[in-house]
Amino acid sequence: MRLSQMLWVTLREDPAEAEIPSHKLLLRAGFIRRIGSGVYAYMPLMWRVLQKVSQIVREEMNATGALECLLPQIQPADLWQESGRWDTYTKAEGIMFSLVDRQKRELGLGPTHEEVITAIARDMIKSYRQLPQHLYQIQTKFRDEIRPRFGLMRGREFIMKDGYSFHTSPESLKETYADMDRAYRNILSRCGLSFRAVEADSGAIGGSGSQEFMVLADAGEDEILYTEDGKYAANVEKAVSLPADVVASPFSSFEKKETPNTETIAKVSEFLQCSPTNIVKNVLYQGVYDSGKTVLILVSIRGDQDVNEVKLNNELVKLAPNYDAKTIISLTVPDENAQQKWASKSLPLGYIAPDLGDDYIAPSAQVEGSFLRLADETVKDLTNFVTGSNETGYHTVGGNWGKEFTLPTVVDVRKASVGDRSLHDPTQLLQTARGIEVGHIFQLGTKYSQAMGATYTSEAGKEEPFVMGCYGIGVSRLAQAAVEQSYDKDGIIWPRAIAPYQAIVIIPNISDEQQVKVAEQLYNDLNSAGIDTLLDDRNERAGVKFKDADLVGIPYRVVTGRSLKDGKVEFVKRATKEAQDIPIEDVVQTILND
Amino acid sequence: MRLSQMLWVTLREDPAEAEIPSHKLLLRAGFIRRIGSGVYAYMPLMWRVLQKVSQIVREEMNATGALECLLPQIQPADLWQESGRWDTYTKAEGIMFSLVDRQKRELGLGPTHEEVITAIARDMIKSYRQLPQHLYQIQTKFRDEIRPRFGLMRGREFIMKDGYSFHTSPESLKETYADMDRAYRNILSRCGLSFRAVEADSGAIGGSGSQEFMVLADAGEDEILYTEDGKYAANVEKAVSLPADVVASPFSSFEKKETPNTETIAKVSEFLQCSPTNIVKNVLYQGVYDSGKTVLILVSIRGDQDVNEVKLNNELVKLAPNYDAKTIISLTVPDENAQQKWASKSLPLGYIAPDLGDDYIAPSAQVEGSFLRLADETVKDLTNFVTGSNETGYHTVGGNWGKEFTLPTVVDVRKASVGDRSLHDPTQLLQTARGIEVGHIFQLGTKYSQAMGATYTSEAGKEEPFVMGCYGIGVSRLAQAAVEQSYDKDGIIWPRAIAPYQAIVIIPNISDEQQVKVAEQLYNDLNSAGIDTLLDDRNERAGVKFKDADLVGIPYRVVTGRSLKDGKVEFVKRATKEAQDIPIEDVVQTILND
Repeated sequence: MRLSQMLWVTLREDPAEAEIPSHKLLLRAGFIRRIGSGVYAYMPLMWRVLQKVSQIVREEMNATGALECLLPQIQPADLWQESGRWDTYTKAEGIMFSLVDRQKRELGLGPTHEEVITAIARDMIKSYRQLPQHLYQIQTKFRDEIRPRFGLMRGREFIMKDGYSFHTSPESLKETYADMDRAYRNILSRCGLSFRAVEADSGAIGGSGSQEFMVLADAGEDEILYTEDGKYAANVEKAVSLPADVVASPFSSFEKKETPNTETIAKVSEFLQCSPTNIVKNVLYQGVYDSGKTVLILVSIRGDQDVNEVKLNNELVKLAPNYDAKTIISLTVPDENAQQKWASKSLPLGYIAPDLGDDYIAPSAQVEGSFLRLADETVKDLTNFVTGSNETGYHTVGGNWGKEFTLPTVVDVRKASVGDRSLHDPTQLLQTARGIEVGHIFQLGTKYSQAMGATYTSEAGKEEPFVMGCYGIGVSRLAQAAVEQSYDKDGIIWPRAIAPYQAIVIIPNISDEQQVKVAEQLYNDLNSAGIDTLLDDRNERAGVKFKDADLVGIPYRVVTGRSLKDGKVEFVKRATKEAQDIPIEDVVQTILND
Repeated sequence: MRLSQMLWVTLREDPAEAEIPSHKLLLRAGFIRRIGSGVYAYMPLMWRVLQKVSQIVREEMNATGALECLLPQIQPADLWQESGRWDTYTKAEGIMFSLVDRQKRELGLGPTHEEVITAIARDMIKSYRQLPQHLYQIQTKFRDEIRPRFGLMRGREFIMKDGYSFHTSPESLKETYADMDRAYRNILSRCGLSFRAVEADSGAIGGSGSQEFMVLADAGEDEILYTEDGKYAANVEKAVSLPADVVASPFSSFEKKETPNTETIAKVSEFLQCSPTNIVKNVLYQGVYDSGKTVLILVSIRGDQDVNEVKLNNELVKLAPNYDAKTIISLTVPDENAQQKWASKSLPLGYIAPDLGDDYIAPSAQVEGSFLRLADETVKDLTNFVTGSNETGYHTVGGNWGKEFTLPTVVDVRKASVGDRSLHDPTQLLQTARGIEVGHIFQLGTKYSQAMGATYTSEAGKEEPFVMGCYGIGVSRLAQAAVEQSYDKDGIIWPRAIAPYQAIVIIPNISDEQQVKVAEQLYNDLNSAGIDTLLDDRNERAGVKFKDADLVGIPYRVVTGRSLKDGKVEFVKRATKEAQDIPIEDVVQTILND
């Protein structure tokens, strides 16, 4: 492609709308244009990157025997009502765009396709002899994000590969799940990315096991915890670890002590001269279920630990049936207004005990179990502990479960953190890294097939629900993640496998006939050799051309400049900026061999 | 691909929902599944066809220098408000799905992309030196059709290639338009289709010239008129021709005659013993503009001719500004209710004169020009003509414009028909054929660039609006049109270039080791030779396999059956059913050479 004929405009300045480097660079280098909030046009250079990523995804998926198809983006509401997700997705969370057609029928724009594919499988798969099956598609998806941001990272319209598999047993599912783990690793390796596969929370999709694929980058939205030996890695939302050992409590009898100005664990610990591991910290949350019911939750956790709100959310989802609900739509620290609604009198924040007596919780809130107490595993075995007294400026010391306090329901809601010992090998300490989630694979089990009555006849002649898996990889997000992982002060450094073009031939001065002639010849030779090449034949200054070439990030740059008199051209690798003069006739082979 | 592992289910019976052969066959052969009204899942076989068509489209577009991109499907309402199409598309015609996001902003689902691409060009193209440009995309589009039908032919979600070009002059536009004409002919030829390029009406897209590409098929929705010599072809909506010569009128003086029971032209002609070419026929229409205004239109046309409502519609759109409107949203023959609204007394249908006097048209309707008279060119030069008298049972004869009657505004609203002489070569008579519109190319001119203020600086330093073209080809519709053009009683006959697989190897009896061994070898050899091949290794009766192979329409069938004992296999061409036994080792070469 000749740049003189290409609709390509680069920007000198960082666009104000962009917050992270990859977003700025894709806008500045003319890869994408913003059309609306979270909605971008993929310009020709970007589209080439996306096609290359898609092709790698397709090849690796096909190699596993999965079959490509294309499912509708417009989805009838009744399918989502069957699975029970319509209200959650369109109203409670509002993540699915919905509309009505001219017949006033409700439709949704697909953020994901479990419902559609399960309906198809229900129709087509009658017998165990037709199983297993695995269908996938590469498609634009829609999500009405609360806060679209970071360009293609969290857009409202984005390209995904999503696949769905159907099985007779969890064992068969596990085989395909393992195939997908390998395929996803291959995809990311072939795209030239450094990444980690991590244990993950299954979130709204549901199911048992799930794993995320994280492209490592400093600006990643997710925190990963992993062990140096590479045997354990998890999203911080899901990570488990061994907390530090408990230091023996200095207290042996229960008493209430005045502890002025000790609203934080650090202050209590210092004032009472005890380890934070002796303290039971009590944290208030407010949860709203999709049925509209609101609950107040008091979580007791060891003083040196923090609550993992994703884990807490999952515990509350388990309790949803108690509130005529399917899921929880918000989980927040209650603000003053909310506190007034709950509390009979102003809450002693920073001094709350493992229970809030009638003094604080309005009787109306105590009925129907809308006040919940939970204890993290870290407090279960504590003895003679320090905790709040429900009175500002006072703590109690030497407390024990079963004596002064009743142990609430015990759950795991603790956040693992860097430096913790690994649960799997206590000699390994957890390290931290930041990543961008580009893939997620799930063992769904029978969640959707059961809800939608999607069954087959087993070998034993029984109707059984399909055991299902689903597997997603964000094609447009992956492409931007590649930039986030690989750039320098001058611009993008595309990995060769997904670069829009592999080489760019620059004519410094288009009035110089010799420069033009050699460049045209090289441009033809490179393209003929299967090396996708750009020709910068624009009527611009050489400096502008070099700056643009750096910005757009093409792996190899060939300049038909001064060294032509020696039969040579300048050959520059974008990643290292390593430059050398090489004979004109060696250019093609040099790139092919690199 | 092994059929034993593929999610593929054929149906024995024609599905009730399908009306035309291609729709029935695609459903029966398991290519598509209906998910909702006008919304289909493309199963793996169909997706392969669509990918093959897309790849041919892509190659031919790239060969013209057009650049592929991908524009958003979600489009902000404000862009469509700028072009003035929002209300027409979402409300008056309601063809565009619209929705509101969580911020209550209005969005549309793209049926076409003039607005988005014009906004991008307005941003990026500042100078004549950046022109011409041509961007295209292959994408799923949405239309909220009034009556979705015929499967992929008129769906609410379908795949299109749409391209948009930007120019400094109509001459530059014409060059790209000619390139697209060639590219579209190449695409259809390469897909193995028989087609005609025809002059077309530009409809709601607007602009000056336009041409449609019609795949010929008996069930086509469109009628094409063409000359035997191939020099003229047009959609009947747009076609022009020479009407038959006028036979001299037998009347020489104006008088009113009693003509009982002569409501039709045939009856008048017979009763008065005159040629239909002597008669002025007066036809009533009612049009509703998007501003809500309604007009009554009386069209005078020669007795042997019919009104082309598309041409009439276009004439009325030209008058839209008189009614504070942009377009017309309905054009119908007024029913009795409508007539009562207009008429002071019951209308003398079948006997209407070229004007309806105060006797009939209520004074309220005559104000503001809401009663319109138009004359087709065929009546302009008639003399001593016969026409209605505004009195049931009476006609007038020997009438003349400028004497007894005032000639209304003259327009071309006549329908060309089979047997007419060609306007371009009167020795050629128009023939008729039916077709399926799969492509449409438009010279848009400055319609969108002017409305949206999309300008560039010309060589003379002036701000000028872009001259634009747009070019669409229906990928999913083309794929189904191929089936509509090519099938027999047993199933589909795919053209080789777009067949999902080129060959199918059938093992009649999977318990026969020799049959399996040879089939497996052939399956590998064919795929290795680049011939996409299916292997029917299902545990089914041979008869079922042969029936399915016919139904699915793979061009070459290879059967490892009885002739194996002679070192041969049966080789069958799907199109002709021509069967022969050929040596096993000749199979690959036979297909490659065919």
